[in-house]
Amino acid sequence: MAPSSSLSPPRVPMELHVKNRDKLLKSLRQHLSESSRPLHGFVLLQGGEEQTRHDTDHIELFRQESYFAYVFGVKEPGFYGAIDISTGESILFAPRLPAEYAVWLGEIKPQTYFKENYMVSTVCFTDEIARVLQDHYQGSGRPLLFLLHGLNTDSDKFSKPAEFEGMDKFDTDLETLHPILTECRVIKSELEIALIQYTNDISSEAHVEVMRNTKVGMKEYQLESLFLHHTYMYGGCRHCSYTCICATGDNSAVLHYGHAAAPNDRTLEDGDMALFDMGAEYHFYGSDITCSFPVNGKFTSDQSLIYRAVLDAHNAVISAMKPGVSWVDMHKLAEKVILESLKKGHVVLGNVDDMMAERLGAVFMPHGLGHFLGIDTHDPGGYLKDLQRRKEPGLKSLRTVRELQEGMVITVEPGCYFIDALLLPAMNNLETSKFFNQEVIERFKGFGGVRIESDVLVTAVGCNNMTKCPREIWEIEAVMSGAPWPLKNTSTNI
Amino acid sequence: MAPSSSLSPPRVPMELHVKNRDKLLKSLRQHLSESSRPLHGFVLLQGGEEQTRHDTDHIELFRQESYFAYVFGVKEPGFYGAIDISTGESILFAPRLPAEYAVWLGEIKPQTYFKENYMVSTVCFTDEIARVLQDHYQGSGRPLLFLLHGLNTDSDKFSKPAEFEGMDKFDTDLETLHPILTECRVIKSELEIALIQYTNDISSEAHVEVMRNTKVGMKEYQLESLFLHHTYMYGGCRHCSYTCICATGDNSAVLHYGHAAAPNDRTLEDGDMALFDMGAEYHFYGSDITCSFPVNGKFTSDQSLIYRAVLDAHNAVISAMKPGVSWVDMHKLAEKVILESLKKGHVVLGNVDDMMAERLGAVFMPHGLGHFLGIDTHDPGGYLKDLQRRKEPGLKSLRTVRELQEGMVITVEPGCYFIDALLLPAMNNLETSKFFNQEVIERFKGFGGVRIESDVLVTAVGCNNMTKCPREIWEIEAVMSGAPWPLKNTSTNI
Ligand SMILES: [Mn+2]
Ligand SMILES: [Mn+2]
Repeated sequence: MAPSSSLSPPRVPMELHVKNRDKLLKSLRQHLSESSRPLHGFVLLQGGEEQTRHDTDHIELFRQESYFAYVFGVKEPGFYGAIDISTGESILFAPRLPAEYAVWLGEIKPQTYFKENYMVSTVCFTDEIARVLQDHYQGSGRPLLFLLHGLNTDSDKFSKPAEFEGMDKFDTDLETLHPILTECRVIKSELEIALIQYTNDISSEAHVEVMRNTKVGMKEYQLESLFLHHTYMYGGCRHCSYTCICATGDNSAVLHYGHAAAPNDRTLEDGDMALFDMGAEYHFYGSDITCSFPVNGKFTSDQSLIYRAVLDAHNAVISAMKPGVSWVDMHKLAEKVILESLKKGHVVLGNVDDMMAERLGAVFMPHGLGHFLGIDTHDPGGYLKDLQRRKEPGLKSLRTVRELQEGMVITVEPGCYFIDALLLPAMNNLETSKFFNQEVIERFKGFGGVRIESDVLVTAVGCNNMTKCPREIWEIEAVMSGAPWPLKNTSTNI
Repeated sequence: MAPSSSLSPPRVPMELHVKNRDKLLKSLRQHLSESSRPLHGFVLLQGGEEQTRHDTDHIELFRQESYFAYVFGVKEPGFYGAIDISTGESILFAPRLPAEYAVWLGEIKPQTYFKENYMVSTVCFTDEIARVLQDHYQGSGRPLLFLLHGLNTDSDKFSKPAEFEGMDKFDTDLETLHPILTECRVIKSELEIALIQYTNDISSEAHVEVMRNTKVGMKEYQLESLFLHHTYMYGGCRHCSYTCICATGDNSAVLHYGHAAAPNDRTLEDGDMALFDMGAEYHFYGSDITCSFPVNGKFTSDQSLIYRAVLDAHNAVISAMKPGVSWVDMHKLAEKVILESLKKGHVVLGNVDDMMAERLGAVFMPHGLGHFLGIDTHDPGGYLKDLQRRKEPGLKSLRTVRELQEGMVITVEPGCYFIDALLLPAMNNLETSKFFNQEVIERFKGFGGVRIESDVLVTAVGCNNMTKCPREIWEIEAVMSGAPWPLKNTSTNI
């Protein structure tokens, strides 16, 4: 058996979702007051349903829709939930399960169970939505439903507004709820932060476990398996925030490696860098952590050069983060630190400001610096309030261009990659070819890339790195040769 | 680290899918000839697409649609595939990937890669389907497409026929393909059997690993984690055939425990029975194995009574299985053996034939005896050729009522459960109350249930149990107290 953990799964406080609802209600009421609209009607959300695979009866393990999870914390499929804007009452609508459910799927829980467990005012059945909401309505005329409809700026897809039988007796508002609820999710509460800290703790520990067990000759997926096992066995995390990226060698330059068409199946070779981007989820809240390290446990000078460039960028950003700081500026700061390091290492030549003007940073780091993190890995709200995406390479990949605010949790994940599909055009471009030291670039062919990703909470005066992995080169080498983590009698890392 | 394995992931022979296509083509041509229809046109299948979670960009790990997997063996999403009925040529249509794919998702593989890897005649792009099929067509008039459309009798859902741009230039046949292709899947080839044997081997080994590590005080999901880790780490199995059922105590009477609303989260208590139904998948082919055992490693006399009843049924069925035997008869045989054992144990009273006439077996075993197993856990084809589902309790749950044929792989999974939702009505029923020994039944309150499930290949003269778990009580107790598996110097189990 794998060595055990210092952690154990914490109790999940359902007060978290009570507070989420209070926050939403307050925010929505304030908006309605400011728009001189009546404080009546209902927020109505539809939870997710179990999905089968194509035409078969193979049921995919259900994970709740994220907005519904935020507001109600319900893990079971087939629910609806409402908040009465007049009274603040919360109502859950549970599916009416057939008697056979008890034989095949488990105890049919009484409504009191859901009422107590999810700390709501009332529990009814989903076939009673129309009647119950009509009965509760305190305004005049047809009751108004605030439904969730809005764009996810990462997927370019729209959320699906709730639908139920008898809906034609209600008026609906599709505009108001989405931006208000999304903004609630952007600023994390203390209870939310505690869960994200826990997923960071167990995932950080699992990353260390993976580092310690990485050996030349293994398959990439074996390290994925170790991570999944550690976070589930000891951390109680049944889901990951996203499919594990276990990239080694050249694969580490493939930003979203690990999917079905590139399934973590390469054999680790001596001299490879590993880039492992893996994060566990606990009670819907996630983590998103990347560690990069040499698979044989010892950095070469080229590996140190690139790793150091990225770590300096990571640390510079975290040192600069505080409320009011623009995320675009942080992205540029990371680019600049990386380009300066690459210049010191003779990978690029010339004036760094000129490189910045030509967006050379995006050749080495085509992705954005980071994204909000919460119930979704790419938590929504990055472009609220009519913020526009930038057009320039690199900046256009940013998942937010907002200024930092206290309570945001955002990933800091600078990277530096040698990607032929980007390098070759840039090296052949008249404006940018001069910056590249062809000979040195040639040396990095097949190197892949380095990413260092931490989850960072913005505080009143600065920020707090929630991720606790070995980051310094000497820390990584020590841990990979068997030293305990955290290291003893040393100054702590950022 | 967990102890290692004697197994390692085998090379996947793509000849398997070449042979699957040959078999389909032969079968379809024969059908067309017999119906005096021309031997022209194309089989056209559409592979699966990656799915995102609700409106987010969270992509679920893709697993190919099962019919497409059978015919083409393609692991990547977004493909179509055709077979030219005139020539036997196979054509894969790959998605045309945008240049950014190389940055974010990996190398854009050339068509020659797919042609060689999947052993097809030709590879084109999905936007060329209409033109390519028109060019290949050797018949007269509009080319005919045989599309997949038919009922899955486990899910009651229909498969989705292929759709593509330019389809209006073709005639389509929605009736012919589904029963023929489904029947191909029912009878397994040697190469298919070898993969199913491998998933059985690695899953059997993982079950033993789980047994050995089961301790009072653990959480059910920790055993799930051990199983997943063993089959992925050592077996290269990224997917399971289905969500793990790790049921202990009373939960072992919940037939499909383990889903999101009943998520393997109970703490193991001294005196519990465990019922662990878990099977890994490798290159689409699955396994489906259940082991039942006391969590503390020692059977009580009541546990032995129920376990022995189920094991005797399991062994009796396997001893009787051979081509020509009716699966309904096997189900009844299992019921009868269980009822006879329960009678010996004074759980039920009276004449077993009378009990059979009243369908008393279905009170203790409400599910069917077993189902076809292959690329789907509940592999299709159970009710082909207008076979009708039975109406009686227990028998109506059978996923097939067919006679056994050589090459079928079918699960044998008798069970005996104490389910209040079934026992209480039967004990209150005038016709059946007399059979129950109320006092003894009372003793089994909270017992849960026992299931023993093996994957069995029907051979020319009998059958072959592909599952290699400890089954005898003394074997289980030996393995749980540390003995190696397989046990040395002992006769083998069935
Ligand atoms: Mn990230
Ligand atoms: Mn089964």
